Amino acid sequence: MQNTLTAAVILIGNELLSGSIEDQNLAHIAKTLEPKGIRVRETRIIPDIEQEIVDAVNALRSKYDYVFTTGGIGPTHDDITSDSIAAAFGVENVVQQEVFDVINAYLTSKGVEFTPAAQRMAYAPEGAEMIKTDQSIVPGYRKDNVFVMAGVPRIMRMMLDDILNYLQTGVAIYNQSVHANVGEGEIAAALEAIQTQHPNIDIGSYPQDKDSTISNYRVIFVVKGTDESEIASTCDEILTACHAGGYEAVMS
Amino acid sequence: MQNTLTAAVILIGNELLSGSIEDQNLAHIAKTLEPKGIRVRETRIIPDIEQEIVDAVNALRSKYDYVFTTGGIGPTHDDITSDSIAAAFGVENVVQQEVFDVINAYLTSKGVEFTPAAQRMAYAPEGAEMIKTDQSIVPGYRKDNVFVMAGVPRIMRMMLDDILNYLQTGVAIYNQSVHANVGEGEIAAALEAIQTQHPNIDIGSYPQDKDSTISNYRVIFVVKGTDESEIASTCDEILTACHAGGYEAVMS
Repeated sequence: MQNTLTAAVILIGNELLSGSIEDQNLAHIAKTLEPKGIRVRETRIIPDIEQEIVDAVNALRSKYDYVFTTGGIGPTHDDITSDSIAAAFGVENVVQQEVFDVINAYLTSKGVEFTPAAQRMAYAPEGAEMIKTDQSIVPGYRKDNVFVMAGVPRIMRMMLDDILNYLQTGVAIYNQSVHANVGEGEIAAALEAIQTQHPNIDIGSYPQDKDSTISNYRVIFVVKGTDESEIASTCDEILTACHAGGYEAVMS
Repeated sequence: MQNTLTAAVILIGNELLSGSIEDQNLAHIAKTLEPKGIRVRETRIIPDIEQEIVDAVNALRSKYDYVFTTGGIGPTHDDITSDSIAAAFGVENVVQQEVFDVINAYLTSKGVEFTPAAQRMAYAPEGAEMIKTDQSIVPGYRKDNVFVMAGVPRIMRMMLDDILNYLQTGVAIYNQSVHANVGEGEIAAALEAIQTQHPNIDIGSYPQDKDSTISNYRVIFVVKGTDESEIASTCDEILTACHAGGYEAVMS
């Protein structure tokens, strides 16, 4: 897609991989970035293992304009994201004195001991720029083109709002869907012809189960691009192709 | 974890990345494999771009015992998984005559033309072993240690059930959760001590939003391993540590 920036997302946490905890962050990140002209091109879900985090961060930060991580910046033993980001950049993970003092004052006021484990929340890779939010005493941060955020959705969202101020923007990306009661095989040839006519538009086809919670129709066509009028005309062509075959189809 | 096999999952589809279509397959795959002693160690969500699929498949099939892909084996222009898997293995994507005949007969019986686009459903990489299901005329397949499945959840699940017959199994993995009303920082030191005592057990800590749909408690501890009695005793120790600090905590 023309004039858009690219991003990768790294979701860090063993339980995201095993299905015990379902990710609630990727969709929000992607939907927040697309109107800014930044497109998520790859997502990796990886365990709390330093070498895995190092490898993913280094593979993705050189390939995409931005990398966003979620998870692993809390105070428990499995929170190793900052150590790992520092290792990925070959720098030390160092105390952020201002953050340390804020957390220390907060915990002291609550009568809670600021243990060595909890103190790790005040560390970030050397050269990181802290990104403070009004509502969390633990900030996210930026290290070059890598943005490190909490895994808890409410806090992640606040951090992302602040991070938007640090990002360059591209041409906004829009999308529009068509829902249709047609078998994919029945419409595939017509759909391919429409796609060929619109090389700057991305048409995706997503068949749905009978018990789909997303749509009562058999298939969803998602039409995406940077030119709103071309998106609209592409959707019209898909609708026309469905109706010409005698299939129900609606914009959605 | 001892005596377990490893797996990676590749979820293929542009719209999974943009949040328009939410993945419903990863959790099911992970939860199905864990009792068989196969642990998902990495997941990548990638777009419908051949080189991306090739790179992900080749990176992961050499690193993990098994790789499972979902999506991109239908009849539309964005269904390029089989072409890409073939490219990853350096073989041709060839017609599977028996599959071709079955689909052809089915579509002919419904009066639908078997277009060149739809015919691509009958192709698989040279040397692939087709994995048929009773309820889908389009099979999944195995190519070495890579298992290729549909993206539609209902069909994916049927394919995975059949695929289980092709997999070696490891020692079954169990898990048990403790939900607690404690701040992570307040329990982190005790939790780390418990983790250190149980190196073969994996303790994850997942703080929850106030409006979490998963738990009414502030944090979920997921305790995972292959030894059920050690999992139980680890949970007991976490409960005891929470209660000792005056925090509510329950097994779940």
